[in-house]
Amino acid sequence: MPTPRTTVRRRSQRGQYDRAVIDAILDEGKVCHVALTTDDGPVVLPTGYVRIGDELVLHGAVANAMMRQAADGRLLSIAVTLLDGFVLARSTFNHSMNYRSVVVFGRARVVEGEEKAAALATFVDHIVPGRSAEARAANDSELRATLALAVSMDEASAKVRTGPPHDAEDDLALPVWAGVVPLGTVVGDPEPDPTLPDDVPLPPSVLELCGFR
Amino acid sequence: MPTPRTTVRRRSQRGQYDRAVIDAILDEGKVCHVALTTDDGPVVLPTGYVRIGDELVLHGAVANAMMRQAADGRLLSIAVTLLDGFVLARSTFNHSMNYRSVVVFGRARVVEGEEKAAALATFVDHIVPGRSAEARAANDSELRATLALAVSMDEASAKVRTGPPHDAEDDLALPVWAGVVPLGTVVGDPEPDPTLPDDVPLPPSVLELCGFR
Repeated sequence: MPTPRTTVRRRSQRGQYDRAVIDAILDEGKVCHVALTTDDGPVVLPTGYVRIGDELVLHGAVANAMMRQAADGRLLSIAVTLLDGFVLARSTFNHSMNYRSVVVFGRARVVEGEEKAAALATFVDHIVPGRSAEARAANDSELRATLALAVSMDEASAKVRTGPPHDAEDDLALPVWAGVVPLGTVVGDPEPDPTLPDDVPLPPSVLELCGFR
Repeated sequence: MPTPRTTVRRRSQRGQYDRAVIDAILDEGKVCHVALTTDDGPVVLPTGYVRIGDELVLHGAVANAMMRQAADGRLLSIAVTLLDGFVLARSTFNHSMNYRSVVVFGRARVVEGEEKAAALATFVDHIVPGRSAEARAANDSELRATLALAVSMDEASAKVRTGPPHDAEDDLALPVWAGVVPLGTVVGDPEPDPTLPDDVPLPPSVLELCGFR
């Protein structure tokens, strides 16, 4: 259910509160933008995340000032945005973009112990599915250097625009092309680490990601 | 010059304050995330933008609450992030992403009159180069319904990660593939508005964007 803070006010027909819609956007995105208020005013920074059940999980170095501030229980606002296309109208004014975005409001819970180790593996698998089984798991000192924060999705909403432009009736007769130019993400050829021996093959996770069969 | 607020503290070797680096990132991105502090705490929302000279220019409906709040001179933090690749290390811990991001701190100036009309055209041309010359320009009532805000880039910094993973010395002998999977944006086939007459051809801006010659 939407709360006052998550209710989409502007172009409210684009607002969606269905968890299936919200989860699909969060599971496709890789980078979120986290906003918090500091003594110097608002700060927004990009970082990786993964949705685990009903929480958005962030992680970063213990040495990261933003993560330490976020860990103290202050309010956070977190956005994930997927840009799907440019919407070209007959008028400059009605140009738009197709997008799917989620905003989450909440306070972070520090994730510890076994749950933290599992969350880091899940994070890696969110970025590259299957990868955590291939790489060496985090050891104790690496886990100690990492802060994992979970934010409940109780206050989450999505905003989605799809479809063609909405031109004013009077503009429809203008001899101006109108429509949508779709955008997508493309995965390039994997670039092996220069120090990698030649006999280490591409792993299943990368083969899958890059669409090789 | 970096200010205390724009100095990149975490992984400071990735911090860059060169305007050419900052401008290149801003000119490639299409969507920014704007954070501000409201009575209900921090709020972050995605929106379009364009860099015009030494300012980042946002625009939105006068009816947009976030835009109205941003217009009152409160502090803003604005981030633009380009995701360039997944960085796969031999260890889970050293996984990373290649990215280029800019964060700007400042207060908005309301853009009015001729400058506003020009800024909206420049915004459309930032999204699709050449488009403003093809579409009908904004009329007075459309301009009145639009709020354009300019934020000085005096307090801007970039953070960039490029290149292969940085594995620990002890991990280099592990038989685990390591390297970078590059990411890019791909433009799909243009989808004409269903109401568009068949005799309206694709315009130069879309032909250029889609790489048709």
